[in-house]
Amino acid sequence: MTYEVKSLNEECGVFGIWGHPQAAQVTYFGLHSLQHRGQEGAGILTNDAGKLMRHRDTGLISEVFKNPADLEKLTGSAAIGHVRYATAGEASIDNIQPFWFKFHDTQFGLAHNGNLINAVTLRQELEEKGAIFSSSSDTEILAHLIRHSKQTDFMNKVKEALSSVKGGFAYLLMMEDKLIAALDPNGFRPLSIGKMANGAIVVSSETCAFEVVGAQWIRDVKPGEVVVIDDSGITYDTYTTDTQLAICSMEYIYFARPDSSIHGVNVHTARKRMGAQLAREFKHEADIVVGVPNSSLSAAMGFAEESGLPNEMGLIKNQYTQRTFIQPTQELREQGVRMKLSAVSGVVKGKRVVMIDDSIVRGTTSRRIVQLLKEAGATEVHVAIGSPALAYPCFYGIDIQTRKELIAANHTVEETRQIIGADSLTYLSIDGLIDSIGLETDAPNGGLCVAYFDGKYPTPLYDYEEEYRKSLDEKVSFY
Amino acid sequence: MTYEVKSLNEECGVFGIWGHPQAAQVTYFGLHSLQHRGQEGAGILTNDAGKLMRHRDTGLISEVFKNPADLEKLTGSAAIGHVRYATAGEASIDNIQPFWFKFHDTQFGLAHNGNLINAVTLRQELEEKGAIFSSSSDTEILAHLIRHSKQTDFMNKVKEALSSVKGGFAYLLMMEDKLIAALDPNGFRPLSIGKMANGAIVVSSETCAFEVVGAQWIRDVKPGEVVVIDDSGITYDTYTTDTQLAICSMEYIYFARPDSSIHGVNVHTARKRMGAQLAREFKHEADIVVGVPNSSLSAAMGFAEESGLPNEMGLIKNQYTQRTFIQPTQELREQGVRMKLSAVSGVVKGKRVVMIDDSIVRGTTSRRIVQLLKEAGATEVHVAIGSPALAYPCFYGIDIQTRKELIAANHTVEETRQIIGADSLTYLSIDGLIDSIGLETDAPNGGLCVAYFDGKYPTPLYDYEEEYRKSLDEKVSFY
Amino acid sequence: MTYEVKSLNEECGVFGIWGHPQAAQVTYFGLHSLQHRGQEGAGILTNDAGKLMRHRDTGLISEVFKNPADLEKLTGSAAIGHVRYATAGEASIDNIQPFWFKFHDTQFGLAHNGNLINAVTLRQELEEKGAIFSSSSDTEILAHLIRHSKQTDFMNKVKEALSSVKGGFAYLLMMEDKLIAALDPNGFRPLSIGKMANGAIVVSSETCAFEVVGAQWIRDVKPGEVVVIDDSGITYDTYTTDTQLAICSMEYIYFARPDSSIHGVNVHTARKRMGAQLAREFKHEADIVVGVPNSSLSAAMGFAEESGLPNEMGLIKNQYTQRTFIQPTQELREQGVRMKLSAVSGVVKGKRVVMIDDSIVRGTTSRRIVQLLKEAGATEVHVAIGSPALAYPCFYGIDIQTRKELIAANHTVEETRQIIGADSLTYLSIDGLIDSIGLETDAPNGGLCVAYFDGKYPTPLYDYEEEYRKSLDEKVSFY
Amino acid sequence: MTYEVKSLNEECGVFGIWGHPQAAQVTYFGLHSLQHRGQEGAGILTNDAGKLMRHRDTGLISEVFKNPADLEKLTGSAAIGHVRYATAGEASIDNIQPFWFKFHDTQFGLAHNGNLINAVTLRQELEEKGAIFSSSSDTEILAHLIRHSKQTDFMNKVKEALSSVKGGFAYLLMMEDKLIAALDPNGFRPLSIGKMANGAIVVSSETCAFEVVGAQWIRDVKPGEVVVIDDSGITYDTYTTDTQLAICSMEYIYFARPDSSIHGVNVHTARKRMGAQLAREFKHEADIVVGVPNSSLSAAMGFAEESGLPNEMGLIKNQYTQRTFIQPTQELREQGVRMKLSAVSGVVKGKRVVMIDDSIVRGTTSRRIVQLLKEAGATEVHVAIGSPALAYPCFYGIDIQTRKELIAANHTVEETRQIIGADSLTYLSIDGLIDSIGLETDAPNGGLCVAYFDGKYPTPLYDYEEEYRKSLDEKVSFY
Repeated sequence: MTYEVKSLNEECGVFGIWGHPQAAQVTYFGLHSLQHRGQEGAGILTNDAGKLMRHRDTGLISEVFKNPADLEKLTGSAAIGHVRYATAGEASIDNIQPFWFKFHDTQFGLAHNGNLINAVTLRQELEEKGAIFSSSSDTEILAHLIRHSKQTDFMNKVKEALSSVKGGFAYLLMMEDKLIAALDPNGFRPLSIGKMANGAIVVSSETCAFEVVGAQWIRDVKPGEVVVIDDSGITYDTYTTDTQLAICSMEYIYFARPDSSIHGVNVHTARKRMGAQLAREFKHEADIVVGVPNSSLSAAMGFAEESGLPNEMGLIKNQYTQRTFIQPTQELREQGVRMKLSAVSGVVKGKRVVMIDDSIVRGTTSRRIVQLLKEAGATEVHVAIGSPALAYPCFYGIDIQTRKELIAANHTVEETRQIIGADSLTYLSIDGLIDSIGLETDAPNGGLCVAYFDGKYPTPLYDYEEEYRKSLDEKVSFY
Repeated sequence: MTYEVKSLNEECGVFGIWGHPQAAQVTYFGLHSLQHRGQEGAGILTNDAGKLMRHRDTGLISEVFKNPADLEKLTGSAAIGHVRYATAGEASIDNIQPFWFKFHDTQFGLAHNGNLINAVTLRQELEEKGAIFSSSSDTEILAHLIRHSKQTDFMNKVKEALSSVKGGFAYLLMMEDKLIAALDPNGFRPLSIGKMANGAIVVSSETCAFEVVGAQWIRDVKPGEVVVIDDSGITYDTYTTDTQLAICSMEYIYFARPDSSIHGVNVHTARKRMGAQLAREFKHEADIVVGVPNSSLSAAMGFAEESGLPNEMGLIKNQYTQRTFIQPTQELREQGVRMKLSAVSGVVKGKRVVMIDDSIVRGTTSRRIVQLLKEAGATEVHVAIGSPALAYPCFYGIDIQTRKELIAANHTVEETRQIIGADSLTYLSIDGLIDSIGLETDAPNGGLCVAYFDGKYPTPLYDYEEEYRKSLDEKVSFY
Repeated sequence: MTYEVKSLNEECGVFGIWGHPQAAQVTYFGLHSLQHRGQEGAGILTNDAGKLMRHRDTGLISEVFKNPADLEKLTGSAAIGHVRYATAGEASIDNIQPFWFKFHDTQFGLAHNGNLINAVTLRQELEEKGAIFSSSSDTEILAHLIRHSKQTDFMNKVKEALSSVKGGFAYLLMMEDKLIAALDPNGFRPLSIGKMANGAIVVSSETCAFEVVGAQWIRDVKPGEVVVIDDSGITYDTYTTDTQLAICSMEYIYFARPDSSIHGVNVHTARKRMGAQLAREFKHEADIVVGVPNSSLSAAMGFAEESGLPNEMGLIKNQYTQRTFIQPTQELREQGVRMKLSAVSGVVKGKRVVMIDDSIVRGTTSRRIVQLLKEAGATEVHVAIGSPALAYPCFYGIDIQTRKELIAANHTVEETRQIIGADSLTYLSIDGLIDSIGLETDAPNGGLCVAYFDGKYPTPLYDYEEEYRKSLDEKVSFY
Repeated sequence: MTYEVKSLNEECGVFGIWGHPQAAQVTYFGLHSLQHRGQEGAGILTNDAGKLMRHRDTGLISEVFKNPADLEKLTGSAAIGHVRYATAGEASIDNIQPFWFKFHDTQFGLAHNGNLINAVTLRQELEEKGAIFSSSSDTEILAHLIRHSKQTDFMNKVKEALSSVKGGFAYLLMMEDKLIAALDPNGFRPLSIGKMANGAIVVSSETCAFEVVGAQWIRDVKPGEVVVIDDSGITYDTYTTDTQLAICSMEYIYFARPDSSIHGVNVHTARKRMGAQLAREFKHEADIVVGVPNSSLSAAMGFAEESGLPNEMGLIKNQYTQRTFIQPTQELREQGVRMKLSAVSGVVKGKRVVMIDDSIVRGTTSRRIVQLLKEAGATEVHVAIGSPALAYPCFYGIDIQTRKELIAANHTVEETRQIIGADSLTYLSIDGLIDSIGLETDAPNGGLCVAYFDGKYPTPLYDYEEEYRKSLDEKVSFY
């Protein structure tokens, strides 16, 4: 049995703006700073005095908007944009957001970060009423729910639709006369509101976009909120009061950019604290600390400071490695030809190395890096992971939907250590993680979703329930 | 008077191989690891049992070789490759290397890293003999010199030609039956020889390519050497004995990859020592150390360890910023829209920051970063530079050919500090630099060329002499 | 007031196949022969044992399917394809056919040639029931009508939907288990059925595709028919009996390829007869006949034979003129720089020329060609048009939807002659046209729609009625 | 033994202009009208007050100059341009003209139509003097000859070089201060001079370019002439007096555009006369005349008029067939799928057809068309060829360099008739050809080169002599 090597992937980022004469351009720069949340497609939809227009395509934001004209044609003072992560096979342009729904009497745009867990059921119900879906994306469901709602007031149609969808979602809805932002009742996905110097309101999956576009953070959208932004300002409303914060802990561990802050906590600082806590939980002797670039450099800094060991650049990532690169043949790979990551023998030779990584998914990458370091002369390689062991799938917007992909779902720590060839393996404890992030909240697990580590999901699983139950009984042997 | 904002640029990288069934593929991966030395063009020329073939184009190596077929058509067991840095306007494909010279009875390929200083004179002499040049590149001169040589033995023609050209050069010459590597009498540019597990010999501008292709380092080519590699092995010969090592110190400071070693010294380690020495020379109080990503991270590590201050990720570089990116308009830039670098206010707010950078060219970038850090809340920004002040041009292969581009050529340290808006400005001393690199040699300046800092060039300047003398009298006021 | 220069444009061509192992490839070649019916977009949807797949894009069929892989990935033994004509601004890929509708329990594809005249009304009714349209194309309406139909049997849903749409249409509907072809009650658009040697059934807008794919013509689809093609063969059914043949006469005059036959009449032969009839109606003296390439060459042959005048190549069309060509600036155009058409002075100098063209829309092109011929030395230019004067818009699938575009709607023949600068101007009579085509039928106007010439439309105009009535009162002065 | 299907190919077209503010644009339109002379590459070199600049690439002129900016950047009031025909494998951009030679003190551009027959000898001699060629093209030789000339006056260098090269050539040489045009001593290739309304002088391979750019023909360049065009006007000079007109008869038969005139004879008119003469030499009964589109339509007109038979459109060429088109697989081809040419059964069914074609090279195409016509129902197909049988290669600029490609070199007329499956086969007689063209000259063969038909070459064959002699003894059996 063979497994595909997979890394963790976020499902999308959104950015919106209201009240800026160059709304498309600002959105472009905002999306650029969210590029790490999705590289398979991007789009921007603008609103020019009630007239919507859009440009979208597969690829990076810089590929989608190759020519200044692609942006310049998107006039208007309001916009929503989206960067998309897509699993292979769904790369059709039909699925690239923002979606744009046009009617004889109105139109609106829609962008979505997250994953619905009752999508199959809702879609079937809607199709039985005559609905035709133009994409395979969950996102389109909200539009059909709004159009089929029997409510008479438009905002009530929206609230009814938001109450029907379950799972993780951060929506941006561009109407002819307003921009609407909405978050799921658990706040699984981050969504923040900021303000530019000229008074324009911006909404973004991450606050790093605010630094880039020169905006000041106002506050994060809260679970169950629906926020209306129009020429009269910002109106905060709710579509449900049955809420409880459970923000995805993987945002802090891996996904979010280190310069973002989520619910008031800077991501780099949280990671450095995780590294420091990991150093306290680490029980071995070593000479130097080496972080796996780029995601684990903050944790490596924290580990080095707490442990007193020198932090060294023992692994180098080639900055020119792109998706379009020709890969070495199997034969060349066996001869040692590799491109993405090099171990620096001048640094690690003869040293006992603590290799810091943010997480282990399948173990394949960890095994390779351990091997690289040993070939470069490291005498011992102690793997220290800045998060607990990933053992359960996510249904709220991260692409780990099966336990088969997870080495920790099927192997003990000692088995894993042997598989990856390390001299020791240390995971951060769940409590250590929660303390390191340190949100100010009374919610369980410190306001975090840690279901990937303990299998306790904050909501029912709806359409996924049965498949998930079955997966718990599967035992998969790696390697 | 306006100045263009310029960063330092290396002029090219070369890679060669003899004796590998997939010579083109290995060269591709080798060049990929040298991509930082030139991004404007690339090419590979292979030798299949005496039949040469070539593919070259403008762009990154991954753009030049978009399709596997581009590589597969280059059969043969030997190859030379080149990545090219080019100033605007010379981006013609005619100038992209390797060059390929075909005759009715023979043919050869040629790749070059460096800059000749008597090129104008040589070209004029050759044209008066009827020579027609097909490019504006210095590199072609060597081929005409070889063809016009009156020597009868081919290697004597090559040696005569090598003795005629002056300046900095590392040449790779692919003949039908051998690969020739040659280095200038001062060894201004790095050039190393390695061996793969299957016995193939590789030659590269930097040893980082050896890690990538799985080769072991044998030794560096020495000043004045001409090395012949063919089926019988490696033969080391010299074309001159009037040599003296003066390797470009900027290779250690900025250009070379941290995982490369030059003349036995690992580049990351040298930089870390520069950072530590800089900490010893630094005279101010501060709270945290922040390196400018990515080139100054090693020096920041060394500074932090030596000073005991925490090393923090206070600046974030967007990894998706590409050459093709649409830039913010002036208007948006004034509104604070920026893309390449963000300061992390969650990290620097309220802190006295030591900002570590590798060098200052025009000062424009330093001024921007200082401003970014202050806007993000840093109370003080102390700029510490991991090299001495750049005040003189380079004629041996780095693109700083006029003093007008250099802030330190025209301003004192205190003036520069005011221009960039820092609270203090510290440069590493020349002696500190030489000691930090620490080559084992008896040559002056520890075997380094430090002419950019002290204006003492290791050779006569030939065609550049007059212009350089004039430039010393020019005084240019910045800002 | 300025007018855009417009030529006549057909709205689309369709091709379908059932029962061929290389259905996509055959469809590709079929569409290639229908390329003249639409150059703005193309697509193919195949059916592989109930699994549908599709490839579509803007551009010529050869641009849409650039790589053999684009075709090879479309497996299956049945297919429908479409070439699209689009007015500027609607070139979005969303509007390129075949459309593909996917449901949780079924899916189907749809391609359409023609124009609906009650589309606005139907779309509004459907949206009020919750329908969301994913394109601005009329074509999508049929799918929504089928899905909203209360009929229980699928074919009854289809027939109900076909009865609801009004105007000109030839539909191909690819179901999981059958291919359905349907024609409007007047048979405005051509649609023919053929059979390949291996038994595969093909359906095409024109029979020229049958020559190209090696198929034998069986018969044309009749007005009001719905034809089902599946593994058991062909079943002819009707959805209405209220039918009357009124095939678009412009198909014979201009659109269809000369090698096609429609309702049994070869197009080249019909045109040659129009040319001969035109010669009989022509009242002037002349020396030579020159047809405007390429569409008027058949009529010129007929005219020359009937009149006894020599047929000469007095106008040359540049075969390399493409849509992407850089056009001469206004300045160069005034200096006489032109690219598409040249007059041959060696042929026309000193001659009285009969210039044969198929039709006059705005007159701009005719005026230019007359001028070209005179500049090349023609002493007289007598313009003879192979059809009656175009004075009324078409609503059934040809892109002349406003009278403003038509010179004959606003000017007498004598005025037109003066505007185009001809020495005489002769149009073919309506009766001459009908006789030349010579369909075997009892229907009015010999089974032809000649509404462009006499303003008598075979159906009510529905959504277009009001606008059309108004346009009759507008008087527009050209030039 | 297999043979490649080959059609006749011209080797290149040239266009030059002096004294027009938009020289590049005019050259673009001029080259566009010469596109039929070469489709593999194109380029334009302009002269802006002594500063030369160039753009060239593979592909059609419309592909090479995709963006208006490609043209606009070529400023200056003088230009030379080239369209290139290339045999496979030589498609490198290095061989695309105009060539551009740059020296420390001067520079010039060069474009060439024709083929040298002593190129191998000259190149070897030059390389022994140290010359390095940058292309594999014959054209470059002239530049090296000029640079190695010991003459002191530049025009004398040029004349000496022109006297050294042998074969067919029409050169355009762009100097900093003048445009030079030169023709070989036999005038094998056409070259005409014209004048635009604004006084600009243009030079072109064919006069059709004059119609397109709005220029008046002045006169054709004569054998052995070297023409200098500069700001003072046109100066006609000669580099040799040993001249004799032998213009390539294939220019009249096949290559040149019908609207061009060569040495005063319009090409369409010449072809029509060939068709009429062919009708007189034709000895069979038939019902209709069908010309193979597009090159044989003129001859078909002449044949029809002379014979009194109706001229019919029995073969249709698909105007959208492009080089990039996906071709039918062998399997589909056997099922009758074809794309480029269709026979119109509605026209040819039951008819005895005279099929007019301009020439037969290998016979493969003729055999296919005969088969197409018979499958479409023609009862007899009489092939009548508007030129004598092609039996000998050309060395002066047409791509038939071996007798193996020519069916008439190895088969009698009767054998050929059987091979192509025709009911009769008639070639035009050599005298009939010469009379039909009817040049006013005393030169042998009416001033034409008819060596392809009788093997009598107007010059020694130099480097080709030996290979040609050998080929006369080879007998190759087709099919």
